[in-house]
Parts: sequence; C-alpha cells; structure tokens
Amino acid sequence: MGYLISEQTRGVFVIAVTPFTSTGAIDYASVDRMLEFYMAQGVHGLTILGIMGEAQKLESEESRKLTRHVLRRVGDKLPTIVGISGASFQVMRSLAQTSMESGAAGVMVAPATGLRTDDQIFNYYGSVLEALGSNIPVVYQDYPQSTGVYLSSNLFLRLVNAHPQIVMLKHEDCPGLGKISTIRRESEQRGIRRVSILVGNGALYYPLELRRGADGAMTGFAYPEMLVQVLERFSAGDVEGAEDLFDLYLPLVRYEQQPNVGLAIRKEILRRRGAIASSVLRPPGYTLTQADVGELDSLINRLEQRLSSMTTAEPNQAAARPA
Amino acid sequence: MGYLISEQTRGVFVIAVTPFTSTGAIDYASVDRMLEFYMAQGVHGLTILGIMGEAQKLESEESRKLTRHVLRRVGDKLPTIVGISGASFQVMRSLAQTSMESGAAGVMVAPATGLRTDDQIFNYYGSVLEALGSNIPVVYQDYPQSTGVYLSSNLFLRLVNAHPQIVMLKHEDCPGLGKISTIRRESEQRGIRRVSILVGNGALYYPLELRRGADGAMTGFAYPEMLVQVLERFSAGDVEGAEDLFDLYLPLVRYEQQPNVGLAIRKEILRRRGAIASSVLRPPGYTLTQADVGELDSLINRLEQRLSSMTTAEPNQAAARPA
Amino acid sequence: MGYLISEQTRGVFVIAVTPFTSTGAIDYASVDRMLEFYMAQGVHGLTILGIMGEAQKLESEESRKLTRHVLRRVGDKLPTIVGISGASFQVMRSLAQTSMESGAAGVMVAPATGLRTDDQIFNYYGSVLEALGSNIPVVYQDYPQSTGVYLSSNLFLRLVNAHPQIVMLKHEDCPGLGKISTIRRESEQRGIRRVSILVGNGALYYPLELRRGADGAMTGFAYPEMLVQVLERFSAGDVEGAEDLFDLYLPLVRYEQQPNVGLAIRKEILRRRGAIASSVLRPPGYTLTQADVGELDSLINRLEQRLSSMTTAEPNQAAARPA
Amino acid sequence: MGYLISEQTRGVFVIAVTPFTSTGAIDYASVDRMLEFYMAQGVHGLTILGIMGEAQKLESEESRKLTRHVLRRVGDKLPTIVGISGASFQVMRSLAQTSMESGAAGVMVAPATGLRTDDQIFNYYGSVLEALGSNIPVVYQDYPQSTGVYLSSNLFLRLVNAHPQIVMLKHEDCPGLGKISTIRRESEQRGIRRVSILVGNGALYYPLELRRGADGAMTGFAYPEMLVQVLERFSAGDVEGAEDLFDLYLPLVRYEQQPNVGLAIRKEILRRRGAIASSVLRPPGYTLTQADVGELDSLINRLEQRLSSMTTAEPNQAAARPA
Repeated sequence: MGYLISEQTRGVFVIAVTPFTSTGAIDYASVDRMLEFYMAQGVHGLTILGIMGEAQKLESEESRKLTRHVLRRVGDKLPTIVGISGASFQVMRSLAQTSMESGAAGVMVAPATGLRTDDQIFNYYGSVLEALGSNIPVVYQDYPQSTGVYLSSNLFLRLVNAHPQIVMLKHEDCPGLGKISTIRRESEQRGIRRVSILVGNGALYYPLELRRGADGAMTGFAYPEMLVQVLERFSAGDVEGAEDLFDLYLPLVRYEQQPNVGLAIRKEILRRRGAIASSVLRPPGYTLTQADVGELDSLINRLEQRLSSMTTAEPNQAAARPA
Repeated sequence: MGYLISEQTRGVFVIAVTPFTSTGAIDYASVDRMLEFYMAQGVHGLTILGIMGEAQKLESEESRKLTRHVLRRVGDKLPTIVGISGASFQVMRSLAQTSMESGAAGVMVAPATGLRTDDQIFNYYGSVLEALGSNIPVVYQDYPQSTGVYLSSNLFLRLVNAHPQIVMLKHEDCPGLGKISTIRRESEQRGIRRVSILVGNGALYYPLELRRGADGAMTGFAYPEMLVQVLERFSAGDVEGAEDLFDLYLPLVRYEQQPNVGLAIRKEILRRRGAIASSVLRPPGYTLTQADVGELDSLINRLEQRLSSMTTAEPNQAAARPA
Repeated sequence: MGYLISEQTRGVFVIAVTPFTSTGAIDYASVDRMLEFYMAQGVHGLTILGIMGEAQKLESEESRKLTRHVLRRVGDKLPTIVGISGASFQVMRSLAQTSMESGAAGVMVAPATGLRTDDQIFNYYGSVLEALGSNIPVVYQDYPQSTGVYLSSNLFLRLVNAHPQIVMLKHEDCPGLGKISTIRRESEQRGIRRVSILVGNGALYYPLELRRGADGAMTGFAYPEMLVQVLERFSAGDVEGAEDLFDLYLPLVRYEQQPNVGLAIRKEILRRRGAIASSVLRPPGYTLTQADVGELDSLINRLEQRLSSMTTAEPNQAAARPA
Repeated sequence: MGYLISEQTRGVFVIAVTPFTSTGAIDYASVDRMLEFYMAQGVHGLTILGIMGEAQKLESEESRKLTRHVLRRVGDKLPTIVGISGASFQVMRSLAQTSMESGAAGVMVAPATGLRTDDQIFNYYGSVLEALGSNIPVVYQDYPQSTGVYLSSNLFLRLVNAHPQIVMLKHEDCPGLGKISTIRRESEQRGIRRVSILVGNGALYYPLELRRGADGAMTGFAYPEMLVQVLERFSAGDVEGAEDLFDLYLPLVRYEQQPNVGLAIRKEILRRRGAIASSVLRPPGYTLTQADVGELDSLINRLEQRLSSMTTAEPNQAAARPA
C-alpha cells in the first residue's frame, strides 16, 4: 500500500479526466497513457472520480474497476485520492473500502445536494465519517457552485476539530479568497489543527490563493506543469515569478474554466497533447463546435508564442513549455 | 401610539392583501373595507406589506402612505406589524421609523436572498437590528421557499440570545414541524428566552403546529375566522375539535396555498366575501382562468354545505360559517 | 412478456417504495409482501425505481436485480414502469433494456438537472429517446421541484408530436392544474396526439386534476385504495362522491406529502399496514421523531374514525377502510 | 433630447457605479466627477441603474432623481441607457417615462426572477413592452447568474421578431460564446433583424466575444479605456493586437469579476483613479479586507509595470495606460 495524505500534504493533485472510446466505454489504454502524461508533468498526486472525471456517469462496477486499475498502475509512484460522493452511505463506504484496499491515499467527499444549515452539513458529514470508519483520510470537497451547499470558515473549523480524519480542504468556493485567509487566521488564533488546502476552480485564482495560505492545487487544468512550476517558484520565495508564469497561461485557464463547456475543452487539449485518444465525453455532454476549435487553436498558438519568446529571453523557463 | 408585540403575543395576525383598482392604483376604499372585514372576523392583529401583500410591487412612497393610512384607520383596535424587508438598510430603517411613529406594533424582516451560512445570516440580521435601533420589536420571517435562506433551530436561538428585539418567529419553513418542537425544547432546556411563534404556509399544518408549540397563525387565508376559532378551541383544550373545524376548511386551505396562483385565489375569495372591490393583482400577476373560477365555485360550495350541515347538527359551531 | 403502457393507459400506478433491512440491504421478503399488498388494494399498475423508491441510493447492480425480481413476481398481473433517469445515456439504456426484457410495461425518464431552456430540454429528451430506441414506451416525468427543470405545455406537445414513444406524462408540477387544462385543450385544438396523464405530488390535488383531464394517479400515498376508489367514483360520474372520499384522507395526504419527511411517514404507514417489515430509509434519510409518531397515531386514528362513521352511515363505502 | 440606441449601436457602454457618501446618501459631487472620468476614457455610452449600480438599494424617488441628474449632466455628449427592471410594470413604466423625457437613449430590462419556460419569458417580456409603449428602445438584459432566467438563442430571435423595440442584447450568460455565434448565424440564415450585442460578465471573454460577433461591451470594468482600445484595435482589423492588450489587463479583469466581492474592488479602483470620493457600498455590501487591499495594490502595480514596459517597447501603445 502507498502512503496516505495528511495535514502536511502539499503540491498539485491533478483531477484526472476519464477517457472514453467513441462507443462510450472507458478507454483503458488512454487511462494508462494519461497517467504517464500526468506523471511526466511532475504532478504530486492524482484525484480520480471527481465531478470533472464524469464519475456520476459511471456504473458502480465501472467506478470500482477504474479505481483498481488506476491504483495498480500508479502504485507507489503518486498518492491517489478517490472521489466517493454519492447518495447512499452504503455505496460510498463500499467504494472507499475498495479504494483503500487498492492503495488509495485518501477519499474525497462533497456534502450532498440539499443540505442547507450549518447543523445539517455538520451532522451529514459526521454520519459519512462514521460510515467510513476512522482510518481513512478524508478530503472535504467544498464546491458550492455544483452542490449548492455552502461551508463557512467556522463550520469547517468545527468539522476539523471534531473529526481527525479530515486532513484536507478541496477549496472551490467563489469568491473564496477570504475564506482561505479566515481559516488560516482562525485556525492559528484558536489553536485548531492546520489542515492542507488545495484549490480548484480551474486555478483561476491560483497565485492569489497561494499567498492566502493554500498548499497547492487540486484541479484538472490541461497544462498541469504550469500548476507545478508556479508552486515551485512560489515555494522558493519567487512570488512575482510565480504570478508571471501563471499570467502567461491565464487566457487559457479562463477559457477552460467555463462552466459545462470547459471539460470538453480540457479533454481536447489533453488529446492534442497526446494524453488521451479521444476528447469525447460520455453522453450527454458538450461537443465542441467549429468556432470553439478555432478559438482553441488561436489560444494555444498564442500561449506557445509567449512561451517560446520567454524561452529565448529567459532560458531557465523552458520547462514551462507544453511537453 | 398603540401597544407593541412581545414574546407573549398570541393569536391570529392576518397577512393583509393590498387591494388595487383596475388601473393598478392602491384602492384605499377597499383597504378600509378590508380592515373592517378582518376585524369583524375576530383577528388579533394585522401584518401589512408582506410578500402576499405585494409589497415588492409598491414604490417606496406608496409603502409609506399605505402604512400611515392603515395605522390611522386601525388605531388602537389591533396591533399592526409592518413588513420592511428590502435590499438597503437605509430604506428599511426609513420605513421602520415611519411605521413605528405611526403606531405600528413591530416590524417584520426576512433575511436577504443570497445569504447562505449560519454566520452570514447571523451577521446580516445583527446589522439590520443595529440599523433599526434597539426600541423596535422585530419579527424574524423564516420563509425559505421565497428567500432561499435556511434558518436552523440553533441559529434562531443564537439570534434570540443575542438580540432582545427579536420577539417573534414567523414560521414558514416546510417541512417545519420539527423545527417548532426543537426550538421549544431547546429553548427550555438551555434557558433561552421563549419567543412567540406564529405560523404561515397558508395554514396547511396549522393544528399540528399548535400542538408543537406555536402561539397562533400569521397568514392570509381568506377565512381568517377559521384560524381564530381553531385557536380558541385549541386554547380551551379541545384539541380534536380544533382539528375537526380545520379539516372542514382544509380542501380550500390546500387550494389557496398553491404557489403563484394562490394569491389570485385569495383575493377572489375576499372579493366574493365583500372585503375588497376587485381581485386584480398589480401586474405582473396571475389571472384566474375560467377553470379556476369553476373550481373555486365548487370548493366554496362544498365548504358551505359542510358548514351548514355542521350548524344543523351542532348549533354551537355556527360561528364557523363565512360571514 | 406483459403488455405495454400506451396513450390509453388509465388508472392508479403506485410508486413503490424500496424496503430495506436495518443493515441497509434490500429486503426482498418485504418486496414480495409489498407487491401483494399493492395488488390487494386494487392498483392498476406499479412504478419502481422512482425518486420515492430511493432509486438514487442503489448501485447499478442492485437496480437491475430489483427490477428483475419485481417483474418476475408481478408477471402479467400488473403493468410495471421502471424509472431509469440518470446521468449517463449508456447506463439508462442498459437499465431500460434489462427492464423491457424482463417484462416491463415502459420506462420513466425525468430530464436531467441543469437543463434550462425549451431547446435544451427538447434536445436532451430527443437524445435520450434515440439512445433508448423506438420500441420502448416512455413516461415523461415532470417533477420540477426535484429536477429544477420546467416543462411548458407547448414544449410537452412539441415533444409528443416529435416522439411517438412518449405515451404518458407523470404530472408533478406545482401549481399544475392549469398545465393539465392547457395540454388537453391545445392537444385537441391542434390535433396533437392525446397521451395519458397520471398525477403525482402525493395526490394533494387529485380530484381537481381528474376534472382537469388527468387519467389517474402515479404516486405512492400509503392508502392506494383511496386513489383507486376516487378514480372509480369519478369515472362513474360521481364527481362529488369522489371528492367526498378524497377529503376524508386529505389530512393524511397533506401530512405525507411534506418534503423530505414524507417518505419516512409513508414507509411507517406501510409498515403499520403490514406491507413492509421496517420503515427504515437507506441512509442518509429522515428518521421519525417521537413527536412525528404521536402525530401519525392521531392522524391515522382520526381517519379510521371518519371511515368507520361513514361505514355505519353508508355501508357501500366500507371498501375505503384501510385493510 | 439626445439620440436613441438602435440595432446599429456599437461601442463601450460603461455600467456606472452609484457613488455614496459614508452616511449612505448618493454622492452627487462624485457622480459628476465619475461622469467626467468615464467620458475622458473615451466610452461611447453609459448605463445607469444596473445591478452593479446598486439600483435595487435605491428608493423610487432616488432612482428618478439620479436619472434626471445624470441625463442633465451628460446631455448630448453620450447616449445613456437606464436600467428599469423591477417587480411592477407600473413602477417600471414610470421610471422609463422619467428617463426618456429626460433624454435617455433607451432602457434596459431583465426578465423577472422566477420565470422558467420559454413561453413564460416571452409572455412576460411582451407584457413589459406593452406597458412601456412602442417608442422606447429596449435592451434585453440576459444575466442568468443573477436572475435565474435562461434565454435560448431561439427565444431571443423570437422576441426580436415580435418586438421592434428590442434593439440590443446585453449578453451576460456564461458560458455564452456559443450563444453569440448561434444568434448571429441564425439571424442571418433566417432573415431576422440583426440587433446590437454588447457583452458583460466583467469582460472576462471580451476579445473572444468580439470575434463571435459582439458589437462592444456593456460592463463596468474600472479601466474602461482598455475596453475602448480593444474594440478600436479589433475594429481596425488588429485582432491579435486587441487580444494582446486585453491580456495585459486580464489578471485584474478576473479579479474584479468575482461575485459579490467584485463591486467593492471596482469602486476602490475608481476611487484610486480619482473618479469617486469613497469606495463604500450602500449597506449591506462587502467591505474590502486588508488582504484584499494588499492584493489589489499588487495587481495594480503589476498592471502598471506591464503597461510602462509596453510603452517603452512600443510607444504607440501608451494610450493604454491608466489615466
């Protein structure tokens, strides 16, 4: 078994897409290729079966099979988190057990749609954790745009205090900069355990979030090497350099984080970069139009020009070029 | 100046409609007639400028003028609560001051749409109360179906503890029976001030809510005498008799509490009962179809038959007939 | 194989609950008992794997197994509709095929959460039907309170016109009386195929909906014999008698249709009536409180008293008593 | 009276903020200064009383007074559009008349929250236009993130066909690129009147939207000169140059378009640029934290460095510097 995520976990955990064939089956050859690709970009971890992994479109059996397959391939090379959110504690526990037995580093759980008050969320999450048992490290996925469930800083700290299993926050609220600051400040002032915070939202606010106290990113932007290098620069104290690099990619970051359309764009970039064979989503899903494809051509072209002019000017930034 | 509402306030506070002429002006002659009608049905109080009073369709000046007019007419005869919810604290304070200076018994405030977490609601409400000052008794309007803001029992008790001005809960969550029970139990166990709870939701669960600990109703059902008599029976210990009477009206209660359509039905019944001249809503608003009118004829006819057969059988229930 | 539903289908299709054991497994002994119970109450059909059947909490394998089991037990005795709504066309088609091969009478599909405009719904539904093939009769489930997807009368008629597979509307919009009237009128005036309309919403508006043109009910009210008898009286021309019978049950109808809480109430009534062994929901789900149970005792007691006084007065209504 | 907007209107219509004093009154001195500022940046038009103008926090009298004041000051120098969305047709018509009599170029109307189906939106909008009369040019504000009302391309073309008053679309759907393409293509193919499309969303997709067929922007980004110059370059055929300039500002565009927080950021930038005296929002509203202010310092500093290095390198871009 591999290692487990903890409060100290830092880095870039890429949200893996799920590649499909044109008939809608999981394309396992592409899964393998994609894993190689992600590792080659230097990511520090992997998250599978997220919302952007089209987890909700898989049958229970498919989810388990994909989980076992990925964990076998990745082995000890990278810690892997498995998204297990669902409508039944029973089904969630079953997938969590499969995951941990196969070597996962932890599981990710979003609160169920329909939870409203602090107490409802607190009680729901407590029941989930009770169902999972105390040995599995858990990531709280805070993604209100998708779940409709809103988490205050206070409530998160109350959950952290009550449940040692919660070791990480996948932060995806928007606006969310203030929440990171408040959690970090309150956690310190009130002596509450400091947990890992990795940020999502397609990385739209990534360098700002690092300054606010985030420990890295958990998102699926199709150029994960940028996420890695920005973090490296930031960690080395080169805050402005981190932001400079990020800004080069920002036009594409912004393009890919469009709701609904974004996943099709991400898969198409991954296809162009050789990571997967087909950019198709399991139906129903958005299909890129000719206008989208032209736009993407142009945005990628502009990125590559910027990167190559950087390379000429500053040779040590060559690593930022797409592989 | 009249008396003020307090934690001890019990009874039926009818949510007054706002009568309009066919050109969309406030019909003040009907306002006067309606006030006489409500008083004749024995209600214990009045709430104006509620959502079902089409408050959001009035200009600021109209709201102030209507408030002054109603309070002058009602005088000391009935305590009157004024709904002041709005997007600006400034505007809310101004209407609250007009209301209290004119003799209102208190004001009603719903949390603003868009508030999500317990802390957001708590802070918002605290700011509202600070803007209003400490001398105005306030009703917390808990109507998540309209506001999208959800209030837990715990949060309500936290608000009650922090703010002596909050003396009443207008309870309109659904499902909401458990919330009344929890508030009453927790308030007693934790020694938190007991406030008045009046129920809305078109009275659909009224007798059950009384058993759970409610002190009366605040709703605009077009037969308010039923609300009064059910409370009288219940208060006299005749719990089953209260429910018997309620059940006679339940088909109409259910019919009138339909979302969107219900206000047009309510105004039409009030028109038929002579309380207002026209059932028109200020546009945009639902207009009854021929099918609606036929249905209403039938439902009213069935109610009257049941009431008259009750009268024959049990003469002491004659009072339950529509005036 | 049994018969198929069609545009001419009328009657009461009961939305079956899914009984669980205390450990959360499907309780197949109770499934069998429940099927006997439903048939004994005279229902005309069955719908399994609906939202109130906790379908979303089952693993794909469990759904298929339950479907096969029910269809084997019911055989030709009753037409059975299977709910197949889901996030993936592939998964939906697979469950539809299992269902039809096992003898289902048709499938029910709700539009996916997140669809907004008429065109989005129209295109989505067309793609679903294409995925299912042209031989499977389909029920359009119109349940905006749960899906957030709103269907206009015009759009429904457009769908009916385009897709002969759509033979039935499960009507659960609220307010929804006007929609039934409009569909019936427009369908006739514009010469569009008349489809079956069965109503849900816990039957809260059932007799009114029959007058508006509905052909029966598709809901899980725990006294389905009432739904059957109301339809019988209505069909025999005894419109007032149908409503009289309905009104006896209305206090319980209203109680059971409470959001969230209602399914626990329904299962508890079914347990008391001997239909299932345990009222437990698969977690997470609402658990009845002591106050709920006392309330239910009282409401059932009141119903039984009303029914028995009817029986004495009008012997021919004895059938309306709970078994 | 000034000129009116039409289908041919192109350019940048800045969404004006409403400046307040620390006591919450409208700061008319700042209004005047702000108008000078906007004009100095070269904007082609003005939109007042938008959502980002805090229109919903003004009393009816204040809205009318502000409208008259702005129109008097601006005179014939710029076409001014007035937002009149509201809950009552009567109130909307009254504000529209005040506006047009004072010299407005048109009014902007968003569909009311709660409208769902194509027919509901179509009928609502038709009633609004009937209430306004046929002489007032109208902008359809398509802002689903705020209104919850979704407009399909087809429905918009149906509205354009039915109502000659609709001359402009304020486009603020997200994702929304496809909608612009579809409207332009369908409009041409089906011979439907081509209307003006100005884009919002804080300009996050501005250059892409111009390529898709937009005619300019209607948003309140605090550097409106960028919006103007991007359009100039684009219109002169310098598509890449337009995007180059835009990309310099993108980090700030992204920062300012954060929900809720963004308006406070915008007002603070405008204050720093000397356009208004105070960045305060009328309560309730977000107040910038120290961390926000530091972040803003840094982002503005980075922008100015980029702009000044551009100036040195390419003197002809000096105009892009903030005034």
